[in-house]
Amino acid sequence: DSEVKIGSYLLERLAQLGTHSVQGVPGDFNMGFLDLIEDHAKLRWIGNANELNAAYAADGYARVKRTLGAVVTTFGVGELSALNGVAGSFSERLPVIHIVGVPSTAAQGSHSLLHHTLGDGRFSAFENMSKEISVDSAVLKQKEGAGEAIDRILVSAMSKARPVYLALPTDLVHATIPAGALKTPLEYSPPPNDEDAEKYVLSVAHDHIAKAKSAVILVDACAARHGCIEESRELIEKSGLPVFATPMGKAIIDEDHAQYGGIYVGNLTTEPVKQVLESADVLIMLGSLKSDFNSGNFSYRTPRSRTIELHSDYTTIGYSHYPGIGMKRLLPKLSAMLAAGGEKRREETMQVVPKFTNVLPDEKGDAISQAWLWPRMGMFFQPKDQVVLWGSIGWSVGATLGVALAARELQIGRTHLFVGDGSLQLTVQEVGTMIKHGLNPYLFVLNNDGYEIERQIHGPQRSYNDIQPYDHSILLDFFSRPKTAQQSQEESHSKDPKPSNKQYYAVKTKKELDELLSDADFNVPDRIRLIEIFVPRGDAPTALRRQAEATGSANKYD
Amino acid sequence: DSEVKIGSYLLERLAQLGTHSVQGVPGDFNMGFLDLIEDHAKLRWIGNANELNAAYAADGYARVKRTLGAVVTTFGVGELSALNGVAGSFSERLPVIHIVGVPSTAAQGSHSLLHHTLGDGRFSAFENMSKEISVDSAVLKQKEGAGEAIDRILVSAMSKARPVYLALPTDLVHATIPAGALKTPLEYSPPPNDEDAEKYVLSVAHDHIAKAKSAVILVDACAARHGCIEESRELIEKSGLPVFATPMGKAIIDEDHAQYGGIYVGNLTTEPVKQVLESADVLIMLGSLKSDFNSGNFSYRTPRSRTIELHSDYTTIGYSHYPGIGMKRLLPKLSAMLAAGGEKRREETMQVVPKFTNVLPDEKGDAISQAWLWPRMGMFFQPKDQVVLWGSIGWSVGATLGVALAARELQIGRTHLFVGDGSLQLTVQEVGTMIKHGLNPYLFVLNNDGYEIERQIHGPQRSYNDIQPYDHSILLDFFSRPKTAQQSQEESHSKDPKPSNKQYYAVKTKKELDELLSDADFNVPDRIRLIEIFVPRGDAPTALRRQAEATGSANKYD
Ligand SMILES: Cc1ncc(C[n+]2csc(CCOP(=O)(O)OP(=O)(O)O)c2C)c(N)n1
Ligand SMILES: Cc1ncc(C[n+]2csc(CCOP(=O)(O)OP(=O)(O)O)c2C)c(N)n1
Ligand SMILES: [Mg+2]
Ligand SMILES: [Mg+2]
Repeated sequence: DSEVKIGSYLLERLAQLGTHSVQGVPGDFNMGFLDLIEDHAKLRWIGNANELNAAYAADGYARVKRTLGAVVTTFGVGELSALNGVAGSFSERLPVIHIVGVPSTAAQGSHSLLHHTLGDGRFSAFENMSKEISVDSAVLKQKEGAGEAIDRILVSAMSKARPVYLALPTDLVHATIPAGALKTPLEYSPPPNDEDAEKYVLSVAHDHIAKAKSAVILVDACAARHGCIEESRELIEKSGLPVFATPMGKAIIDEDHAQYGGIYVGNLTTEPVKQVLESADVLIMLGSLKSDFNSGNFSYRTPRSRTIELHSDYTTIGYSHYPGIGMKRLLPKLSAMLAAGGEKRREETMQVVPKFTNVLPDEKGDAISQAWLWPRMGMFFQPKDQVVLWGSIGWSVGATLGVALAARELQIGRTHLFVGDGSLQLTVQEVGTMIKHGLNPYLFVLNNDGYEIERQIHGPQRSYNDIQPYDHSILLDFFSRPKTAQQSQEESHSKDPKPSNKQYYAVKTKKELDELLSDADFNVPDRIRLIEIFVPRGDAPTALRRQAEATGSANKYD
Repeated sequence: DSEVKIGSYLLERLAQLGTHSVQGVPGDFNMGFLDLIEDHAKLRWIGNANELNAAYAADGYARVKRTLGAVVTTFGVGELSALNGVAGSFSERLPVIHIVGVPSTAAQGSHSLLHHTLGDGRFSAFENMSKEISVDSAVLKQKEGAGEAIDRILVSAMSKARPVYLALPTDLVHATIPAGALKTPLEYSPPPNDEDAEKYVLSVAHDHIAKAKSAVILVDACAARHGCIEESRELIEKSGLPVFATPMGKAIIDEDHAQYGGIYVGNLTTEPVKQVLESADVLIMLGSLKSDFNSGNFSYRTPRSRTIELHSDYTTIGYSHYPGIGMKRLLPKLSAMLAAGGEKRREETMQVVPKFTNVLPDEKGDAISQAWLWPRMGMFFQPKDQVVLWGSIGWSVGATLGVALAARELQIGRTHLFVGDGSLQLTVQEVGTMIKHGLNPYLFVLNNDGYEIERQIHGPQRSYNDIQPYDHSILLDFFSRPKTAQQSQEESHSKDPKPSNKQYYAVKTKKELDELLSDADFNVPDRIRLIEIFVPRGDAPTALRRQAEATGSANKYD
């Protein structure tokens, strides 16, 4: 059997999974590992501006590449900055490996490590913190079993679609282990369901659907996270049922699909969609993920008794739970079962699904309102464009880096970021990393003079909802090499990608935005663009306003 | 007894402790509390660009104000971003309270909170993570006992000089409790030492010092952290012994003091200092804090058998430990004991302490080397100037905000930041918050084209040690309100402080820097200044080079 360095073993596994961009920041305990990344033919080291942004980028990358995201940090000070990003991947179910370079196994045994901890002699504080937001972790202590441990946590991440943690001591990176296992790619597809239990579930589901006067499908993020996109599409085709999507499930179904009726997001949903979906006799939820953003702040009005939920490792029908019955195996059988009558159902579907069109509201005035902005943007997007939108603040800018990298690797669509002037500030420096890697996303910055969502919730005239105004017209210039500066001649810069060209646009009226979005040159993603859209203070989309009112009641007092 | 809101009770305690600036970022679960901060006559809400920077600012504030730092975040997404900053305060022993606005006690009981957790039903993941880096915490569940819990954790923070965590539910902020306790300020000075044990320790110490041919004092950070600056100075005066300082203990002793001999930092120390200190028969360490930065990467050559260590709650003499014998009470008695013979010792001291002078090295060439830079800067500093230097990367920019706020409140000195071009990128947006609050620090940016420390350690020609170059000439412009933009007329902006004026300087030669530092106008801190100093790639201070070699050996492999 040939031998391979433990660090290289891990990188081979990443390459096999299609993880070709690795995010992170160098540090004293990870540089030996970074050498291996830089020297690997298939991998690209991204080198983010800080660790939080790196974790966000790994999350965005995992979403679009539909595989493992990877982030490398250094022991203690480095790894802790990444935690919020990893926690986001945990709650939104993205497989991410957080690889932390830690002191050598020799140093760990000695007194000197004591100094590298928090100064109070506890060795495991950092690991403990990460374990709260990981589904599996490995703290390597010796080369024996290292390959197996790496394989185990990678399989956990992929099969559970959640982050894992790996502590990699400096000396073990270059210690060798047998390479043989690498010949077999990792197997992380779910095991078959229990045959009898599955048959029973199918028959109960069939009864429900057969008896229903109306049944609809709601596709959600976890169908994508657990590799069930094809299976979900097959169900839609074969069953002929109306299909709706949550905000995070949107990518699974084509907006132009004849059976597609629009977005469901609890009480933020438009009336026609709400009507059809909430009154259905049977609602089939594929991979439901109820985060605040994805569920209209948890405001579903969908009775449990009429709901069938398909998840990666369990199914529910009404009040009955069926643990161990996962959707990857169940879906094809459900599709086969519903194929009979599919055409008839499809015809009925055409009668009920609300026709989805982007209609611009008939508003007075030149100023850009959000009510006008979103349908207008809808006309601008092209199929396969990647749109990064809201999400928890700060996340979106880091995630855009990962999304743009993944989109480039997959050679799909353009990348658009929509970010508020407030959210932008949290992680703004990651724009520099985009320029460094020659990426050309469209960065739409909505400037409404502060934290408008928060103002809608509480304290509209409070100065804590104000922010320091930035001069966005020079943002791209600030994060670029100054024109006057010589390009460094050092060898280490010889491998630098060609940085992005750049352009800034200020947009204050509907007409200006209209013209810009219709401009043919503007539509070519040949440079990084920052489009600052000025929106009046106090303006907010109706949906947001409603959501804010609900949240705001929690902050009320006399 | 009159009543007070729980939120106001906490704020009164902060005001009593002299904590007048509160760092943080608004969020859904803390805005009711922010109202109270904004309305409090003695408190100022800072409103940072992100939570990590906010935690760093609280750390810097605590260092200079020598009291509690405070940072407010929101449940989950907000609080986790602050953890790295709080962990830094834990290991460097700064009292900081991390106040997290959490859902109401009613919501906590209900199903809806489940959604606000990580999506897997665990309620305590966030608390658990913070507990690893806190000496005490309180998760308020009801108004009964809330005041006592707040008092307890504040006393823990102040007496142990470490962070504490407070989860503050939205409804309890405005619930009322009796106000009576507020009449008595918190008592956090250490209890008296056991009388007999203390006597014994004093006599053992006396024997050691009396027998010694040479004894020296080393002052370190924890003497300041535990409120023993006056006691330490008294010991120096009365004993007449030579005194040295660690990098973090420097603020305790005046550089011009006749007994002062310079900085000790393990094997990075200059020869004359190393000589005197490491050969002393007795070394009295006051409040030793051995972090990597503060101890020359843990390279002390000071034999335990000849060392007396005074800490906040224990003492060691040689190999003997004396738990419970704290320095606050011990120091005055030691001083009294050593007063006899003090004059004679002082005379001997004059013979041995190396005379500390800032000598510029005699170098060829115009380019600014670090060997030349640091002594030159030494001549520029004025007594009471606050200098923020290195530290863990990213920390320094956030900390400078807190330091500048504290210095303004205390009406002491100017604030100088020295930051590498790489470190600056992690938290650069906090410069905007400085401008928002009209602060005028000097920001010296050392531009050496990347992560030079890391290059010295490993991979000098590796591209992972390269960074995206920024155009620092427009940094201050980018983080300021654009000239073309109208000042918002909203009421919420009416309380905005006057933003800083600003100026940028590019410095490429010794002559240029010399002239700039000597310029009278430049010396007046009437605007925020960014001074970009270009240093050649590959140049590093000797001390750093030596430290890097030691660290680098950990990354070596074949
Ligand atoms: C890390 C983090 N900190 C704080 C919050 C609370 N928060 C939610 S929205 C928001 C304001 C966003 O402002 P902006 O991006 O300008 O969007 P706008 O509301 O103005 O459209 C804040 C501070 C959060 N969600 N996440
Ligand atoms: C949060 C964090 N991430 C990474 C590191 C590892 N690290 C230590 S020094 C350094 C480079 C600093 O570069 P710069 O500020 O330009 O200073 P220079 O070494 O060039 O003088 C890095 C990445 C760290 N200490 N902390
Ligand atoms: Mg905004
Ligand atoms: Mg540098």
